[in-house]
Amino acid sequence: MKIRGRDYRSVWMEEGVVRMIDQTLLPFDFRINDCGSFIETAEAIRTMVVRGAPAIGAAACYGMAQAALAGKLNEGERVISKTRPTARDLFDAIEYFKKKFVGSNAVEVACAYADESAERCRMIGVHGEKLIKEDMRILTHCNAGALACVDWGTALAPMRMAHYRKRKFFVWADETRPRLQGMLTSWELSEEGIENKVIADNASGYLMKEGLVDLVVVGADRVAGNGDVANKIGTYEKAVLAKENGIPFYVASPSTTFDLACASGKDIEIEDRGSEEVEFVKGIGSDGRLSRVKVSPVGCRVENPAFDVTPAGYIKGIITEGGVVKPGKVKDMKFI
Amino acid sequence: MKIRGRDYRSVWMEEGVVRMIDQTLLPFDFRINDCGSFIETAEAIRTMVVRGAPAIGAAACYGMAQAALAGKLNEGERVISKTRPTARDLFDAIEYFKKKFVGSNAVEVACAYADESAERCRMIGVHGEKLIKEDMRILTHCNAGALACVDWGTALAPMRMAHYRKRKFFVWADETRPRLQGMLTSWELSEEGIENKVIADNASGYLMKEGLVDLVVVGADRVAGNGDVANKIGTYEKAVLAKENGIPFYVASPSTTFDLACASGKDIEIEDRGSEEVEFVKGIGSDGRLSRVKVSPVGCRVENPAFDVTPAGYIKGIITEGGVVKPGKVKDMKFI
Repeated sequence: MKIRGRDYRSVWMEEGVVRMIDQTLLPFDFRINDCGSFIETAEAIRTMVVRGAPAIGAAACYGMAQAALAGKLNEGERVISKTRPTARDLFDAIEYFKKKFVGSNAVEVACAYADESAERCRMIGVHGEKLIKEDMRILTHCNAGALACVDWGTALAPMRMAHYRKRKFFVWADETRPRLQGMLTSWELSEEGIENKVIADNASGYLMKEGLVDLVVVGADRVAGNGDVANKIGTYEKAVLAKENGIPFYVASPSTTFDLACASGKDIEIEDRGSEEVEFVKGIGSDGRLSRVKVSPVGCRVENPAFDVTPAGYIKGIITEGGVVKPGKVKDMKFI
Repeated sequence: MKIRGRDYRSVWMEEGVVRMIDQTLLPFDFRINDCGSFIETAEAIRTMVVRGAPAIGAAACYGMAQAALAGKLNEGERVISKTRPTARDLFDAIEYFKKKFVGSNAVEVACAYADESAERCRMIGVHGEKLIKEDMRILTHCNAGALACVDWGTALAPMRMAHYRKRKFFVWADETRPRLQGMLTSWELSEEGIENKVIADNASGYLMKEGLVDLVVVGADRVAGNGDVANKIGTYEKAVLAKENGIPFYVASPSTTFDLACASGKDIEIEDRGSEEVEFVKGIGSDGRLSRVKVSPVGCRVENPAFDVTPAGYIKGIITEGGVVKPGKVKDMKFI
């Protein structure tokens, strides 16, 4: 991804140091966080300096390389595996490292993991960019961007690729309450030079009805065997509104996010994240410093489901590294 | 409405003083603002100490009474009419006062205006409460509550009435970005003792799909002759999702909000409010003081349509002071 005119990945390794974009400061401040040891890398994963399943996987793999270089592979695995217990990519990355590591190739293994992850996203870009026609207005939800992956992003990969191929288009970024990841999307797109505007989540239906949206592309947290897709809360709303207004709705997802053991969306458990994300909002205060304010009244109760499931019937296609598949054909995919 | 166990209106008059709940401090702090002169009342309208079209109308009428008592009726009209140029209720209230005022009945006229306004909302409660069955889960959007009216509210009037009649039910309050008026709704309901939870706007579709919503009731900013309804941005989204999930969607609105000169929703212009409402969020900071933070990145562009139009076809009924009407029958209403 381009940031301030330079190429970046969300996480990489230089001379034994794991370097990553500090995502706790974005979209307000852009800084690189350096981790000199696997202990520091694990801490960065735990405190969400790096976030997004594929980016976490790469950070974990780099951390394993640091542990191997220090002769502490077992301790590294123990420490890193305890950082974010629910991210499947983290455990995949640890297994990948243990399988490929033969004693002297620690850095090569971790770099290969990150490269493969980035390449899957780049190929999503290659297949997905064909959907983006000149002057289209595209709506996206949450941040399925390069920040959450190693590079390219999932939903944002087709947009990056189309932009690099000099196509002109415009993006509506849902702000995506409660955590406002749409602000990250807007920041990423603006850094690339892709024209975009942020909207309140409530405004997307209005824009669709007014004929101001030609295409919807979102990411995925899990794709079930029948093509149902779990993703950030609100995705289902956008899918229903897209269908009602005759707008094609696509999901962008690497094959690593497919979970064929999961028959349908009904088998996906939705995490309730507690009230804090809704009750507090983070931003820059009048003193110019990062701070948070409580927006809910005293004693207010909150329900905060983190994800929802969009049934396959609302989805026109799933953009993968192997091509665009119909949700009903997920099980027949050859490249998984 | 009940607040801290006592009966309140959003605005009223005592011994020449116009008193109102200070809505700039809600839902964080509950204070009464006193206006000793029509100048102060006008200033309170202008600075949104009182907000919501019916409440503004009542405040304006009380302000006219203050001006009349001071022998400055013409000056009062000039000052008050300049406070909020788009609120139709404000001009209706001024006309009402001028028509009924005969020299010695200033306070009586203003009180009659407020009483009539409150009575329309109470009757919305009487007709609407029949829709609320025991143990229902009701979703509402924005704040169509007593704070915005003189008393009772529009969408919240049926809930208040059902609660006073000892029915048990539960309310989901959309937080309603960008201005988060859902927090006011939650505060109002909690003060009444009505069980409720706030949700991110993105979560309502999920709750509907999971079978956790039995009824949707919202307010209206304008009802067109064909039954199309303009209301807070996001209302259209909730209406589409309710239809998709087979949930009845009702609008609560006094006849004064009907605009039969407006043939359909297409004739209603949607105000774009600029980016500030999306870019900044107000809340209580860590120092316990009311403050605001900027949630958008530097240079971020924003689109902020304030209202949307819900076509009549999504609306099961409009709850008015005269009864529940089908949207297609708006023109045949007798009581307008």
